[in-house]
Amino acid sequence: MGEFDLINRYFKRPPTGAVVLGVGDDCALLQPSPGMRLAISSDMLVEGRHFLSTVDPFKLGHKALAVNLSDLAACGAKPLAFTLALALPRADAAWLEPFSRGLLALADAHACPLAGGDTTRGPLNICITVFGEVPPDQPLLRHRAQPGDDLYVSGQVGDARLALEVFRGTRSLAADAFTAVRARMEQPTPRVALGMALRGIAHAAIDVSDGLLGDLHHILNASNCGATVDTVFVFSSDATSATLKQLPPALALDCALAGGDDYELVFTAPAAARSAVQAAARSSQTPVTRIGQIDAEPGLRLLDAAGRPLTQRFGAFDHFA
Amino acid sequence: MGEFDLINRYFKRPPTGAVVLGVGDDCALLQPSPGMRLAISSDMLVEGRHFLSTVDPFKLGHKALAVNLSDLAACGAKPLAFTLALALPRADAAWLEPFSRGLLALADAHACPLAGGDTTRGPLNICITVFGEVPPDQPLLRHRAQPGDDLYVSGQVGDARLALEVFRGTRSLAADAFTAVRARMEQPTPRVALGMALRGIAHAAIDVSDGLLGDLHHILNASNCGATVDTVFVFSSDATSATLKQLPPALALDCALAGGDDYELVFTAPAAARSAVQAAARSSQTPVTRIGQIDAEPGLRLLDAAGRPLTQRFGAFDHFA
Repeated sequence: MGEFDLINRYFKRPPTGAVVLGVGDDCALLQPSPGMRLAISSDMLVEGRHFLSTVDPFKLGHKALAVNLSDLAACGAKPLAFTLALALPRADAAWLEPFSRGLLALADAHACPLAGGDTTRGPLNICITVFGEVPPDQPLLRHRAQPGDDLYVSGQVGDARLALEVFRGTRSLAADAFTAVRARMEQPTPRVALGMALRGIAHAAIDVSDGLLGDLHHILNASNCGATVDTVFVFSSDATSATLKQLPPALALDCALAGGDDYELVFTAPAAARSAVQAAARSSQTPVTRIGQIDAEPGLRLLDAAGRPLTQRFGAFDHFA
Repeated sequence: MGEFDLINRYFKRPPTGAVVLGVGDDCALLQPSPGMRLAISSDMLVEGRHFLSTVDPFKLGHKALAVNLSDLAACGAKPLAFTLALALPRADAAWLEPFSRGLLALADAHACPLAGGDTTRGPLNICITVFGEVPPDQPLLRHRAQPGDDLYVSGQVGDARLALEVFRGTRSLAADAFTAVRARMEQPTPRVALGMALRGIAHAAIDVSDGLLGDLHHILNASNCGATVDTVFVFSSDATSATLKQLPPALALDCALAGGDDYELVFTAPAAARSAVQAAARSSQTPVTRIGQIDAEPGLRLLDAAGRPLTQRFGAFDHFA
């Protein structure tokens, strides 16, 4: 199977949506809606760092696009299209067929067609660049958090890290519980509908890839403010799974607050917008949980269940640290 | 040096041009000109396949962006911005500093700022996605060649392949000649100004990455037509270097017609547009050479210096063949 056969067989589809010209020319041509800004994000996934070599290629196809759509979600952007650059050790149909199926199924679900890309031989590397559009005055940006804002997280955090610990052999779980947390790690749900519903409501947003607190730090640094997080949410709210709540408390906190790979949104919104936030959650069918607030005072303060300062330390994932 | 230090030190610049929001948020935000279509291309460069491990990182930075700008040129698009996803074995300042300098120097020369991207640890892999804009009715596309069109190539072809043969040890060259052909391989010139000048003049275009004839085949297949190439241009025109002309004829033909890595434009234009093509060449300060014509009859016919059919066979580069 040559390079062009490979592209035609697994990745070429007729142009659709904003894609005027798709796979097969020097460039893809895209027609965004008039007046909209283009939101662009690029993520590279490397075997052994972002996924295990044993992962089901179908799930990997899903995840490779999901982590990019999650960046659009964090900006409140509507997906338009994406490009895929793929380095493969060999042209292996048994891998390419399920990979492309998982990738394009999520693309179809978000009306975000593959517009073009590149294939080459090399150590397995998946680089996706995704394009979305957002009204010029309404992107959700990291630097717009304000003191007094409520702090929220969408969905559930911590399960992806818990699954990783099971793969690493540091924890064990019953089969059902492992299946559930493994799905959270391998097939994250990008919160695109929530991000779009929060336009004009949320002040600042980021998606949780390196860990909730680590990613929250990016909001705080960019916005020149601090935050207080009521960590009781880890044990008493819907923002963590029943499986995670059964862990020893220090480990549950670590998974939820520093785990990473959750692809949930952390966002801030003014207290006056609480009902609007809940309406956005309902309309996007995405649960959100209030976990704290933004402070004028810099730094991050963590409170335990009794409202006392928590002294446990948490890190964030850094590819070069 | 952590991931964010690395980005801030080598790649972060204030937003400029069409980039409204640059490196440092979940997405970059881009504002194309009203009414324009967005042209997008993505190329992935892998060590050992697209470049040698010994290459000067400054030149590699140049080339990584040049091959992407070349795709914009082949569509007649004006560059707007690009994203960079980079997998690195380690955060090595001695590599990153010259790499980013070479990359951003070419970006500055084309007013095409870095808008965002990703960095991760992994086998060296450079994935750039580039964005340009083009009027909706004027992109240069592969499928628009018409029988009777003249066939042109820009600049000079074959030197990049000759340099590769020297690196492989199959040829040797005098030091000056090697320096010249090596520069063609390591620092190709994307023909952006020519591509833009050919809007509304050329019918079809492609950039030469896999070899002149191989890339011409893409035009012929997409346009459902054939072509005749007068190979005398290899020996008598400005479209090949004096160094290449001194090679044994069969080898010179192979380098020029099947060499690849030239990043020149192959394009077609109606015979009535000859003076317009020459004016575009002058205004863009890019030489162009007429090398043949498009035929209604499918297939590719090569003529030798006496106008007789040439029987030498040529291939094109395929990453998975």
